[in-house]
Amino acid sequence: MGVVIPLEEGKNKQASVKPLVDLTRLDMDRVNQLILSKAGSDVQMIPEVANHLISSGGKRLRPMLTLAAAQMFGYEGDGHIKLATSVEFMHTATLLHDDVVDESDLRRGKSTARMIWGNQASVLVGDFLLGQAFKMMVETGSMDALDVLASAAAVIAEGEVLQLSVAKNMETTEDDYLSVIRAKTAALFAAAAEVGPIIAGNDKSARSALRSYGMNLGLAFQLVDDALDYGGKAADLGKNVGDDFREGKITLPVILSYRRGTPEDRAFWKTAIEDGQSSDENLQQALALIGKYNGLADTIARAKHYGAIARDALSPLPASAHKAALMEVIDFCIERVN
Amino acid sequence: MGVVIPLEEGKNKQASVKPLVDLTRLDMDRVNQLILSKAGSDVQMIPEVANHLISSGGKRLRPMLTLAAAQMFGYEGDGHIKLATSVEFMHTATLLHDDVVDESDLRRGKSTARMIWGNQASVLVGDFLLGQAFKMMVETGSMDALDVLASAAAVIAEGEVLQLSVAKNMETTEDDYLSVIRAKTAALFAAAAEVGPIIAGNDKSARSALRSYGMNLGLAFQLVDDALDYGGKAADLGKNVGDDFREGKITLPVILSYRRGTPEDRAFWKTAIEDGQSSDENLQQALALIGKYNGLADTIARAKHYGAIARDALSPLPASAHKAALMEVIDFCIERVN
Repeated sequence: MGVVIPLEEGKNKQASVKPLVDLTRLDMDRVNQLILSKAGSDVQMIPEVANHLISSGGKRLRPMLTLAAAQMFGYEGDGHIKLATSVEFMHTATLLHDDVVDESDLRRGKSTARMIWGNQASVLVGDFLLGQAFKMMVETGSMDALDVLASAAAVIAEGEVLQLSVAKNMETTEDDYLSVIRAKTAALFAAAAEVGPIIAGNDKSARSALRSYGMNLGLAFQLVDDALDYGGKAADLGKNVGDDFREGKITLPVILSYRRGTPEDRAFWKTAIEDGQSSDENLQQALALIGKYNGLADTIARAKHYGAIARDALSPLPASAHKAALMEVIDFCIERVN
Repeated sequence: MGVVIPLEEGKNKQASVKPLVDLTRLDMDRVNQLILSKAGSDVQMIPEVANHLISSGGKRLRPMLTLAAAQMFGYEGDGHIKLATSVEFMHTATLLHDDVVDESDLRRGKSTARMIWGNQASVLVGDFLLGQAFKMMVETGSMDALDVLASAAAVIAEGEVLQLSVAKNMETTEDDYLSVIRAKTAALFAAAAEVGPIIAGNDKSARSALRSYGMNLGLAFQLVDDALDYGGKAADLGKNVGDDFREGKITLPVILSYRRGTPEDRAFWKTAIEDGQSSDENLQQALALIGKYNGLADTIARAKHYGAIARDALSPLPASAHKAALMEVIDFCIERVN
């Protein structure tokens, strides 16, 4: 099952992350060097575990947001390199802990660190990276950036715990679900973007514009991710269609299909998700119900809504290559579903 | 098996933590309030898990160190309350993650959080408390305190990973072991003490005096803890004699007994620790070998050595009730083995 996203009228090419990559290329080289250096330790297992995840080919969207958001306000120091690296370390630490919490075997098509080095190393190397992240933030000397990123760290963990407590509960509403992804995904996107204007010494309105952009981009990004889990291809995703289903995760395609379904449909979802009856046959049934009730298309429609908010958040800023690149990232995130 | 520690000449009473408790009582009330408030969350599981551990009756030695170290330099703001709370949260987060890493069932005589709420909640609530700790540090506005505590967070995690990599390896030297406990225990004691003079605006010599005091007190504290595991009573400890043995942990009593033993003794230790043959019969044999080679008494002797360094670190400071209380804590930590 795939979802075809109609391109906006007047657009003749697919949106790309390439303009953002090009604008941040030189700074990203410095970030990548700093990542390698700060993930180093005399304790051999630390760089092994850290580099396994760091080198596994994520797009590094979050640190690029920080770099672009600092550049667009004319920042010329090196604080944004440290903040971008901190953001990536916070993200990596979250992934290490998530894989333990979710008992995941695969991430981006590779064995998770916990499968190779064990849960213990994943928990502790995550803690190490968090500590290194805070040290780098301190080096920048920006209390405001520290405040934003420390708050994000607490909110992310809070969101993960919230996710545990709504897990396998089919009565989860769309609002409950939004609270979870706002905390566990969007908060770091928001912080990553906001620290750009902060380190550049910018005013409150620039901060709130970038924060709102990041928050809503993060929501759109996560919604599309959740749709892809029921509609993408394993090779693209590094994970298999239905992974969320098999883990009993409640995501928006499921919530919509459940709430729009007949009593029989709802009974099916309860058996599948709450009782963990996630056979391949039940996955096919789930995919059929999601199709029947427009679960994917409407999840993408919701993602577009947040994308539109992100776009309007940036709108008042003067035109620039950076603004255009950040705008295009919104479309890129949404158009991944093809 | 017990170890009788001869009291120093001229001393007629056992050292106590009471003077420190009395001096910090009012501030500790504020710390306890702040702990409850900052461990709160709309996500119900977070205060449940946090309060389980927070209310389980630890002595809160680390935050008391921070409070006393700030008071002794005449600090009158409320930053030390936030720093002391941050220190306790960092400690609590470490315990939550440790119990997952060590797969522990009991802590201070109570079921560990992971046994009640699962590993997932323990990892994530630990992350939440770490985030809250950094937010409070930011509120104090002290970059130096942030730097010291963020560095400690990274070092603690590094020490835990190092401990994993030396785990069950009988060739671990006393130096290897010291590197582990310096990182995983002493670093937080050092940071807890050092942030006192920092928040009080004090100079470099006061900072290094308190840091050295905390570091060496932490080493003494951990060494005594390790001795108690082979010589204490379960009711006092909230854990059972031989827990470290059953978990295959390498601690100084074991290292000394192994290195001083015959080839047969060493073969026994390898079987017991490296191959995990930790039956009650083998525990009795281990206790006998530790007794034969003075493993406990000499571990305590090492603890006294670090206690003496801690004492000399404080010596140059002017006499005060706080200095006397901090000095007495050194003896208290060591004389717990009775």
